[in-house]
Amino acid sequence: MDNYYGPGRNHLFVPGPVNIPEQVLRAMNRNNEDYRSPAIPAMTKVLLEDVKKIFKTITGTPFLIPTTGTGAWESALTNTLSPGDRIVSFLIGQFSLLWIDQMQRLNFNVDVIESDWGAGANLEVLGSKLAADTGHTIKAICIVHNETATGVTNNLAAVRKLLDHYQHPALFLVDGVSSICALDFRMDEWGVDVALTGSQKALSLPTGMGIVCASPKALEASKTSKSVRVFFDWKDYLKFYKMGTFWPYTPSIQLLYGLREALDLLFEEGLDNVIERHSRLAKATRLAVEAWGLKNCTQKEEWFSDTVTALQLLGCLAGVEMILKDVGYPVKLGSGVAAACAFLQNSIPMIPSRI
Amino acid sequence: MDNYYGPGRNHLFVPGPVNIPEQVLRAMNRNNEDYRSPAIPAMTKVLLEDVKKIFKTITGTPFLIPTTGTGAWESALTNTLSPGDRIVSFLIGQFSLLWIDQMQRLNFNVDVIESDWGAGANLEVLGSKLAADTGHTIKAICIVHNETATGVTNNLAAVRKLLDHYQHPALFLVDGVSSICALDFRMDEWGVDVALTGSQKALSLPTGMGIVCASPKALEASKTSKSVRVFFDWKDYLKFYKMGTFWPYTPSIQLLYGLREALDLLFEEGLDNVIERHSRLAKATRLAVEAWGLKNCTQKEEWFSDTVTALQLLGCLAGVEMILKDVGYPVKLGSGVAAACAFLQNSIPMIPSRI
Amino acid sequence: MDNYYGPGRNHLFVPGPVNIPEQVLRAMNRNNEDYRSPAIPAMTKVLLEDVKKIFKTITGTPFLIPTTGTGAWESALTNTLSPGDRIVSFLIGQFSLLWIDQMQRLNFNVDVIESDWGAGANLEVLGSKLAADTGHTIKAICIVHNETATGVTNNLAAVRKLLDHYQHPALFLVDGVSSICALDFRMDEWGVDVALTGSQKALSLPTGMGIVCASPKALEASKTSKSVRVFFDWKDYLKFYKMGTFWPYTPSIQLLYGLREALDLLFEEGLDNVIERHSRLAKATRLAVEAWGLKNCTQKEEWFSDTVTALQLLGCLAGVEMILKDVGYPVKLGSGVAAACAFLQNSIPMIPSRI
Amino acid sequence: MDNYYGPGRNHLFVPGPVNIPEQVLRAMNRNNEDYRSPAIPAMTKVLLEDVKKIFKTITGTPFLIPTTGTGAWESALTNTLSPGDRIVSFLIGQFSLLWIDQMQRLNFNVDVIESDWGAGANLEVLGSKLAADTGHTIKAICIVHNETATGVTNNLAAVRKLLDHYQHPALFLVDGVSSICALDFRMDEWGVDVALTGSQKALSLPTGMGIVCASPKALEASKTSKSVRVFFDWKDYLKFYKMGTFWPYTPSIQLLYGLREALDLLFEEGLDNVIERHSRLAKATRLAVEAWGLKNCTQKEEWFSDTVTALQLLGCLAGVEMILKDVGYPVKLGSGVAAACAFLQNSIPMIPSRI
Repeated sequence: MDNYYGPGRNHLFVPGPVNIPEQVLRAMNRNNEDYRSPAIPAMTKVLLEDVKKIFKTITGTPFLIPTTGTGAWESALTNTLSPGDRIVSFLIGQFSLLWIDQMQRLNFNVDVIESDWGAGANLEVLGSKLAADTGHTIKAICIVHNETATGVTNNLAAVRKLLDHYQHPALFLVDGVSSICALDFRMDEWGVDVALTGSQKALSLPTGMGIVCASPKALEASKTSKSVRVFFDWKDYLKFYKMGTFWPYTPSIQLLYGLREALDLLFEEGLDNVIERHSRLAKATRLAVEAWGLKNCTQKEEWFSDTVTALQLLGCLAGVEMILKDVGYPVKLGSGVAAACAFLQNSIPMIPSRI
Repeated sequence: MDNYYGPGRNHLFVPGPVNIPEQVLRAMNRNNEDYRSPAIPAMTKVLLEDVKKIFKTITGTPFLIPTTGTGAWESALTNTLSPGDRIVSFLIGQFSLLWIDQMQRLNFNVDVIESDWGAGANLEVLGSKLAADTGHTIKAICIVHNETATGVTNNLAAVRKLLDHYQHPALFLVDGVSSICALDFRMDEWGVDVALTGSQKALSLPTGMGIVCASPKALEASKTSKSVRVFFDWKDYLKFYKMGTFWPYTPSIQLLYGLREALDLLFEEGLDNVIERHSRLAKATRLAVEAWGLKNCTQKEEWFSDTVTALQLLGCLAGVEMILKDVGYPVKLGSGVAAACAFLQNSIPMIPSRI
Repeated sequence: MDNYYGPGRNHLFVPGPVNIPEQVLRAMNRNNEDYRSPAIPAMTKVLLEDVKKIFKTITGTPFLIPTTGTGAWESALTNTLSPGDRIVSFLIGQFSLLWIDQMQRLNFNVDVIESDWGAGANLEVLGSKLAADTGHTIKAICIVHNETATGVTNNLAAVRKLLDHYQHPALFLVDGVSSICALDFRMDEWGVDVALTGSQKALSLPTGMGIVCASPKALEASKTSKSVRVFFDWKDYLKFYKMGTFWPYTPSIQLLYGLREALDLLFEEGLDNVIERHSRLAKATRLAVEAWGLKNCTQKEEWFSDTVTALQLLGCLAGVEMILKDVGYPVKLGSGVAAACAFLQNSIPMIPSRI
Repeated sequence: MDNYYGPGRNHLFVPGPVNIPEQVLRAMNRNNEDYRSPAIPAMTKVLLEDVKKIFKTITGTPFLIPTTGTGAWESALTNTLSPGDRIVSFLIGQFSLLWIDQMQRLNFNVDVIESDWGAGANLEVLGSKLAADTGHTIKAICIVHNETATGVTNNLAAVRKLLDHYQHPALFLVDGVSSICALDFRMDEWGVDVALTGSQKALSLPTGMGIVCASPKALEASKTSKSVRVFFDWKDYLKFYKMGTFWPYTPSIQLLYGLREALDLLFEEGLDNVIERHSRLAKATRLAVEAWGLKNCTQKEEWFSDTVTALQLLGCLAGVEMILKDVGYPVKLGSGVAAACAFLQNSIPMIPSRI
């Protein structure tokens, strides 16, 4: 028992799952409901409209999938791409590493652009690849907007600019797990084709809802994708959207109540005010880190993340690598200090800037 | 607002999601927790041991996957079988229909044994198929233990007896969604290779946890299965089990707290007492149905379900079929009265025997 | 543990405390708050205005006292009357008996008008007393609006008519514990000087808030009352009302949140609709009682209560009287069947009409 | 709305009401219960035994009264003393001032021993009075164990020593509102006759339960006390204790559940460990106050409170006095800096040492 319940009120200072506001906890403290009753579709219809606002999209189609961020990744990839398709992706930390691992295991052909951990996505290399790809063999660009492990935020507008510059038709898939609702994110303006996040991050809910949003182009691609999928298949969702009952299988009713409350809180404060608040607190956090004599993992100011501040951990790398190798975890060995930081993010006293 | 929150205290009389005990609601009314903190692995370790008891297995390995029953189905199939593998499965109602649809879309070769809706699995035909399959082309028998749509419980011991009689090595995969924790279920004794359930059924939790249990033979099969999978891959879970941190990605902390409380309640009453209680209440429900002049969907006493009592709905079939055809839902058209009942189970006044 | 927590969801079928709506439980599921922070006075100010609506008063002054109905009784009496003052009160059941006992112990001179239990207040006798009291020795008329023990509702408008008819200046004090918010109650129209209720009755909150409302005449009387009092003294409340901080001592913050939600629910449905609902359900309850062959405690239709239906319990009187005599409880011995019913109201299967 | 619900998780840094542990909130998040059902007396019986432990008494009789600390004061005084009785009491801060005001309004003859605010009770003067009182006109010594307003803890053992030295039979009444459960308190060892606290202080519950404990000598005195009382009368409680139903009127069921959980938490940590924890944290708080260049209100180390650290507020006295005089609040005018501190304790940034 002692192990499960600590004394006092628990506050989390890790990049996620984050603290749940008490209003949200109260909203979720409810019995189950029949998901085929009229109440649930009525609520879902409004939720689907409202959730588009966190992506800043008008043309997108959202899916509230009972899964985690990892499942949201799989949903994004398998609905839009076919086995063997060439993907260009960026390896800049633990979470981009894990997504690339997933792409490879799903039999996509991943063209990895690697940076030092602590640096952002290397867009020069992307430019070269796009320039060279006159045959349009690249089917998708996959990028983690905010790499939680290293506190690096990538420049999505610049990626879109490159795609437009080379008039390249590749799909633009974005992991927004530790960015959406807390960092500036503009799905329509930046021409993002699939954006995704998880309920336990900036939405401040329990884990269990993978939120995926697809552009019309991505929906079109899903009609011909040959990747095998059922649970994650958008087609089933779209059928039930059309039918007006919305759910191909049982959703978590409590997470829907929680999402409603979280969106209400978010809209009440104003999405842009929330983003500005994170920016302000992140600056304070970075100043504190500096004052304490610690070193930020993020190498340049242009990549500073306003949701996670990652610190360099000196001297603890060897032991961590040994453990990881032992269990077959797909960590990037020999990557030095930052790698250790990345993997340990949840178990050491890190300083997230999110409140 | 009116649509979401009805007056008074909400009680559910549908086959699921079922009412959550107030103790369980209280246990889940908690903030998030860092899943890499020492508390969560410590709790998970005990939960994994305890959850084996609801399957009545000693040799099985359980997985608590942040997904639904549909995801649990996918996990069971993709971890043990390879595309093209021959599966024998029984079509006796809406849920067996949906699982078969999944098998087909996952590129398995499904050999369907159909019964009238309201009847149980046709084991005679299974016997013939096993007798004929001297080359062991059948890789798995897939069966829904309790078909929620028609209130039919299949005889799993008899399936095992046939497999043993023909010394057939096929894997034995069981959907126990509306049975496990409420009907007699014996994984080890009946030689079940993969058993699965969902949190929102007899465990009386919110939706969001697919609970899958694999026999040593199933684990062995998972090493060579060629089905593409990442989110549902047991390998990732097993790596983290070995590491002692247990979770390849973020679990729902609240569902873990809820599962702990639900298991405590279950063990306090005694699993066999709970099963006996359902049996008693189901008998009373069937007597009431008879007294009201309604007709049970289930055709013979040997198949009577002690968790769901399904009724025949006369005269409403045509409209339902039309809607279904319209949206492309994989319903069995022309199946008569029981089919309508099946699909409408959650939206019409059905009488579940579960309390 | 078994004794405290029953299985399943608990529903109460006693006259009070009644079931708490889940919305109200959620609203109260909150941490303490500093009652000297700006938030609490701001909330209190609005609550005090809104609570006047349940009394149907514009000129009244409400007090939300951290106490029970018994404390609310004491507050009503000691603030308006002085020791030795003559009070006319009606003895028609267990609760009027207890209030009269309190009046006597507080050293008032109580002139009791008794009726058979099951009958309403004898207003003819009141008329005679008022007619005879030309010297205005009667300082107050005290009446229980709805006698919970016997399911009798008294006619308050008729009491006011008598007072007006005889131009009698006596204060008119009303116990509305099991009536206010559920039965028709009109403080201003009926010239009630002090009305009171408890949070755990028709407001559907936990016990712990005695809600007392004083007319300008009652407030005037409180300035000269010589009854000794501190905790229940309205003067202290009025000082803090003037100061704008509202609370002479710490209130229960959670009950304030709960009261806010309860009033919101009440106003949303409409107070008169709520009263009508109780009337409708009470009629159904009385019909059911009749159909079951049981006998209503209430002797005439004019007194039928729409919040509590009390039944006659034959043959159990002797034992009950013995227990009561033993412990010195001020029950009316020898009063027959109805007395037993009265005292046992909470421990036997009674049928309250309230939902 | 904004006024009631602040963003984020609310933490209180005032002397009370204090933060409620989340386990306690969960335990109270329950529907009402029939207080005449078997469960409530069974629970109450154990609670009454367990609550004696927080007073460190074996011979005492506790009362769990649905009221606040002010009501608990009134219960202590009116049950043991008669109007006109001489009480010796100490005026050392706002709460002793308010209690003395209550004594005077209840018509007791209060002999006040005043100290500068920030100093403890003047025991030398008490000694002189006891020495002079050979006729035993002093019926009670009333003392606030821990004066919240000034952060002063009085030496109760020394009071008992004086009483014993002079073989004086006066009752010894102690306000332990901000001490019991957090400071060393020994009812039996120190010969305390009535001790009292409130639920919202060291027990960390919502407001609404006044907890009073009476020695056999106090119970004996209650039999002859001539103070008028009904709601606060111990006699009614004792009747229902004898009867085994325990409650003369409806208790707050939720506070009983909360008390159970609070006591469990307290006993699990160990009452003496909790007291030691407060001592340790109070030392840290005093060091911090010193480091910040602020001045402790408490004048000498022997009086340092381990539950409240009060600070001196320079220069804000005049305005506060004006407000107080205006509304008739019984504040000690002209008492200087500490008085201001006292009254403002909840609305200014004070530093309570309690966690």
